[in-house]
Amino acid sequence: MNFIVRILGSSGAFPTYKRFSTAHFISIYDKHFLVDCGEGTQIQLSRFNTKFGKLENIFISHLHGDHFFGLLGLISSYNLAKREAELNIYAPKELENILFSENSFFRRKELNYKVNIIPLSPKHSVIYENKNLQIEAFQLAHNIDTWGFIFREKQRPPNVIKEKIAELNLSIEQIKKLKQGKDIKIGDKTYKNETLTIHHNSPRSYAFCSDTAYYEKIVPIIRNVDLLYHEATFLEKDYTEAVKVKHSTAKQAATIAKKANVGNLLIGHFSNRYRNLNNFEIEAKEVFPKTIAVNDGMKIEIFPDHKIEVNEHNSNSTVV
Amino acid sequence: MNFIVRILGSSGAFPTYKRFSTAHFISIYDKHFLVDCGEGTQIQLSRFNTKFGKLENIFISHLHGDHFFGLLGLISSYNLAKREAELNIYAPKELENILFSENSFFRRKELNYKVNIIPLSPKHSVIYENKNLQIEAFQLAHNIDTWGFIFREKQRPPNVIKEKIAELNLSIEQIKKLKQGKDIKIGDKTYKNETLTIHHNSPRSYAFCSDTAYYEKIVPIIRNVDLLYHEATFLEKDYTEAVKVKHSTAKQAATIAKKANVGNLLIGHFSNRYRNLNNFEIEAKEVFPKTIAVNDGMKIEIFPDHKIEVNEHNSNSTVV
Repeated sequence: MNFIVRILGSSGAFPTYKRFSTAHFISIYDKHFLVDCGEGTQIQLSRFNTKFGKLENIFISHLHGDHFFGLLGLISSYNLAKREAELNIYAPKELENILFSENSFFRRKELNYKVNIIPLSPKHSVIYENKNLQIEAFQLAHNIDTWGFIFREKQRPPNVIKEKIAELNLSIEQIKKLKQGKDIKIGDKTYKNETLTIHHNSPRSYAFCSDTAYYEKIVPIIRNVDLLYHEATFLEKDYTEAVKVKHSTAKQAATIAKKANVGNLLIGHFSNRYRNLNNFEIEAKEVFPKTIAVNDGMKIEIFPDHKIEVNEHNSNSTVV
Repeated sequence: MNFIVRILGSSGAFPTYKRFSTAHFISIYDKHFLVDCGEGTQIQLSRFNTKFGKLENIFISHLHGDHFFGLLGLISSYNLAKREAELNIYAPKELENILFSENSFFRRKELNYKVNIIPLSPKHSVIYENKNLQIEAFQLAHNIDTWGFIFREKQRPPNVIKEKIAELNLSIEQIKKLKQGKDIKIGDKTYKNETLTIHHNSPRSYAFCSDTAYYEKIVPIIRNVDLLYHEATFLEKDYTEAVKVKHSTAKQAATIAKKANVGNLLIGHFSNRYRNLNNFEIEAKEVFPKTIAVNDGMKIEIFPDHKIEVNEHNSNSTVV
């Protein structure tokens, strides 16, 4: 069961040909999600062979252009390609008017398909759910309203061992009990759940936090996630500038990762003022060694045993 | 004196990583102009090392997304970079409301610099002029109001031969007359203008026609230009589709070039339905041999003697 994060854009405010604006493509089981949609996201979606025709849910962290200008091209291209499936965009409420008010470029009645803008609420809450996962939104600390997102796999019920079903001639009712983690009684004998079932690994999780200043209030929310993406626009030497514009330094991102006891930290959204981006990973690793500075096209897979595998776009990665 | 067209995006409606949406960067003498601004144009501007910080005038042919969505990112990035110079955007009048109405993303008062939207008129007219060139706009035939543009160098006045100025002790007034192409009289003797001056080559010109159906009314307007860019979304085998959606085939673009007796034809805006784009150039060349199918990054320079030089972005071109 897949759990994959694909980085489509890793730049800060100014995109370059090497680093596009922010967008992450997340595939969990057979569902695909987009978090943020900077300019050129549709180009990156096709460049990295994502199944973006199947995208039904987009999450926009905040309404700075480098996080949502790509929506215009994506919505247009879906329309030209005669999309029929509804598209849900979870976003700050102002997006509705930007895209669909009287003077906007789009007219809902002129689109082949329905676009739903679902406004994000200030409260930490579950905003999407299916049988395999839930997605939560929570507020970050930027200079406009900004949300982070957590993708949490649900705990899969245990599998009842096939041979035991035959051997003990288990009823549907008994199997149901076992799948709920309960013990069962046959005649006088009690069978412990773990003797008849195989339990799955604990659920996997991914948190996206961009853009944000250093903000400790998110620590309990993102605690123990397998993978945290936290923006690192600046290096610590520019701490004062980071505080001023409500962005984070690499060290601050790593400090949040450490306090939240996450499995691995991804950092990105690097300011284009820096020539040598290696310093971001170096700085963060001093606080939190399991840090990865992302590049466009990077694919991070979380396996059921919580190990991760990272492949650059241009490496000889196995295609998942 | 430079006269250079740089192709920033050559794709049709759907951009790809290899071909971005339409945008041309035009440098004439020391001035720079942008025609159309598809998604990702700011990325291409920096990728191809254009002097886009010096851009003051942008021309938008029509309000289909693949020709103007890049304006949002460009306007934002100029603002983040603390631009102060005014920016003029010559465009269909609806652009004003799309960018700056009550619910739009931009607020003029929140920008560091002034953005002027100058509406295009239905009449063929000069919309920009400086001492070296004039730019004209004229209507094309697409499924929404669409304009073409011509960049025309002005005839440079003749240079008076330095040695003659000394020899004949010419006055300012006499030099002025000679620069106006007139003969002068010194005492009883009349000096023919051409004996005292060096005349410059005739002016150079570039016409941009995209998007448009086959439209013969533009022939007299673009007659004899050195370089014509004419869209060629389709091949002739899909003529019926081209007519339906008001685009042109490669053959039609070439026919316009031939009828207008242009120097060279550039074709682009290729539909992504075609695998082998070589067929566009092959088809056009049957009608008009001096056809070039453009790629992103291609640089076309028109020299004063009206010869052109074409350099691909990745070739060992001489840097101009």
